[in-house]
Amino acid sequence: CISQDIDHILETQSALAVDLGGTNLRVAIISMKGKVVKKYVQLNPKTFEERIELILTMCKQAMADAVHLNCRILGVGVSTGGRVNPQDGIVLHSTKLINEWSSVDIRTPLSSALHLPVWVDNDGNCAALAERKFGHGKGIENFVTIITGTGIGGGIIQHNELIHGSTFCAAELGHIVVSLEGPECMCGSHGCIEAYSSGLALQREAKRLHDEDLLLMEGMTVNNKEQVNAIHLIDAACLGNSKAESVLHTAGTALGLGIVNILHMINPSLVILSGVLAAHYENPVRQVISQRALLSAQDTKVMVSELEDPALLGAASMVLDYTTRRTY
Amino acid sequence: CISQDIDHILETQSALAVDLGGTNLRVAIISMKGKVVKKYVQLNPKTFEERIELILTMCKQAMADAVHLNCRILGVGVSTGGRVNPQDGIVLHSTKLINEWSSVDIRTPLSSALHLPVWVDNDGNCAALAERKFGHGKGIENFVTIITGTGIGGGIIQHNELIHGSTFCAAELGHIVVSLEGPECMCGSHGCIEAYSSGLALQREAKRLHDEDLLLMEGMTVNNKEQVNAIHLIDAACLGNSKAESVLHTAGTALGLGIVNILHMINPSLVILSGVLAAHYENPVRQVISQRALLSAQDTKVMVSELEDPALLGAASMVLDYTTRRTY
Ligand SMILES: [Ca+2]
Ligand SMILES: [Ca+2]
Ligand SMILES: [Zn+2]
Ligand SMILES: [Zn+2]
Repeated sequence: CISQDIDHILETQSALAVDLGGTNLRVAIISMKGKVVKKYVQLNPKTFEERIELILTMCKQAMADAVHLNCRILGVGVSTGGRVNPQDGIVLHSTKLINEWSSVDIRTPLSSALHLPVWVDNDGNCAALAERKFGHGKGIENFVTIITGTGIGGGIIQHNELIHGSTFCAAELGHIVVSLEGPECMCGSHGCIEAYSSGLALQREAKRLHDEDLLLMEGMTVNNKEQVNAIHLIDAACLGNSKAESVLHTAGTALGLGIVNILHMINPSLVILSGVLAAHYENPVRQVISQRALLSAQDTKVMVSELEDPALLGAASMVLDYTTRRTY
Repeated sequence: CISQDIDHILETQSALAVDLGGTNLRVAIISMKGKVVKKYVQLNPKTFEERIELILTMCKQAMADAVHLNCRILGVGVSTGGRVNPQDGIVLHSTKLINEWSSVDIRTPLSSALHLPVWVDNDGNCAALAERKFGHGKGIENFVTIITGTGIGGGIIQHNELIHGSTFCAAELGHIVVSLEGPECMCGSHGCIEAYSSGLALQREAKRLHDEDLLLMEGMTVNNKEQVNAIHLIDAACLGNSKAESVLHTAGTALGLGIVNILHMINPSLVILSGVLAAHYENPVRQVISQRALLSAQDTKVMVSELEDPALLGAASMVLDYTTRRTY
């Protein structure tokens, strides 16, 4: 039995992390130190039944692989778009980005099929947990993460813990409103920062310019109109396209003002920009803070995340922190 | 000596509350139950020295009166405009509404002259403390107070405690931005809800309309142009003045969107509207929430404060809570 105990100690304590996004369904084995040991990616199915089935298939595959990789799986952490009740492991309500994903109990089917404890939270909140455990947020009492991808999400750490709010819609940072009017948003409102500054919003503007033959500069090509996206807009602006520059300026101002609102409401010491557009927004955000924030908030640090998979790492951290801290 | 002890018990445990606003300096004796036993009002002097001197004079008068009123003064609570470091009892920075009121240590001169412990916080934060102890916020874990007076202030209670933030500028709710452009604000920025919806902002618009002879309706008079204010605007709108209605509509939309931003960031269960314009804004705010907030935030309660002197009551509560709870 001694040899068994030693084997047990030599195993790497790990988590299964699941990330449910608008496009992809990802599963990963993640070690205590934040190493992504193995990762699996599939398209996220459009129906509830197919989605749950695929999650289970991928998790079972990962659990089988984990044995050979000498990883001991302590539990499953799920990151998902939408509002989540993490106490009950339920997705309350998602935007149009994920179909058939409202009032969905994720914990019960996963924990009964996999015989593991299951944690669930919003993808933005998971990203903040990832920064707290593995990123720029380590040891920072009050910070905020804002993720600009297809949409915009976020998480707020206050006194070292996530804020979930009274009905679990705190830190819905994509839906901070910065205009009395403004473009339509996926949430049904308009003027939200997601409608100005997300990947989808920039793609919408890129397509609009392309339709009017105003997007492409010398040397730029797109094979297919559907492929026009935020990157073309950024490239065109770099090449001196003033219309593209103006769209990006507005997007940066909107995101910056959303962040100014965060500073004036909860006054974190650090804002972490995450997601594919983070590096692009770093300077505009700093500039808007210097122009529009109160003196007392001027020194707030703005950093770009260095984590590759914040949602997956945060999902894993729910599992890993619980098993070491015994309080969550 | 037994008779002395009984006298002591029969005294009402009370606080001295001081409220420093843009116009007035107010001092009150306030009992444990939130009764304003006696109140003193003077114009707030324009210089630091005169202000501190007047505060001391008024407090000494109140302390002398307290003896005859059988009130035992346990300490002094100060509510003031501007950003405050409550740990050190220092006003860090005020807007133009109060002159010579930045980097000011209030605690030291008051506590050494009056021989009493002194607490200091921002007026909006004090209003939230007042609601927690005496108003709609009693027993509510997460709520927000927003005060529309000359300016706009606020306080956030999260897990039953105020949020102060990393540099003491949390809950600067007047400076939530709801427009990429928008009118200039006292803080130096523009598009803040204070620049749209405060008493000063409405007065600015009322004067503008009056200058163009577009304000007054049949039966309305103003003796002096300087007296034109928010009330005239509200009266004119009630009498069918569509320009005045439009100004008030924008003001209500801006305040409502500011509150939507609060809901999407910290998701309180209750928003308390306070100050002279609170009743006027109640319905517009509810309407904007129903139009622009996420489904999960739609059921947030919106109530109008029933407290007469929230800043004074909150200033007193810092004293009274400390003496009973022994933790602050
Ligand atoms: Ca979130
Ligand atoms: Ca405040
Ligand atoms: Zn939205
Ligand atoms: Zn302002």
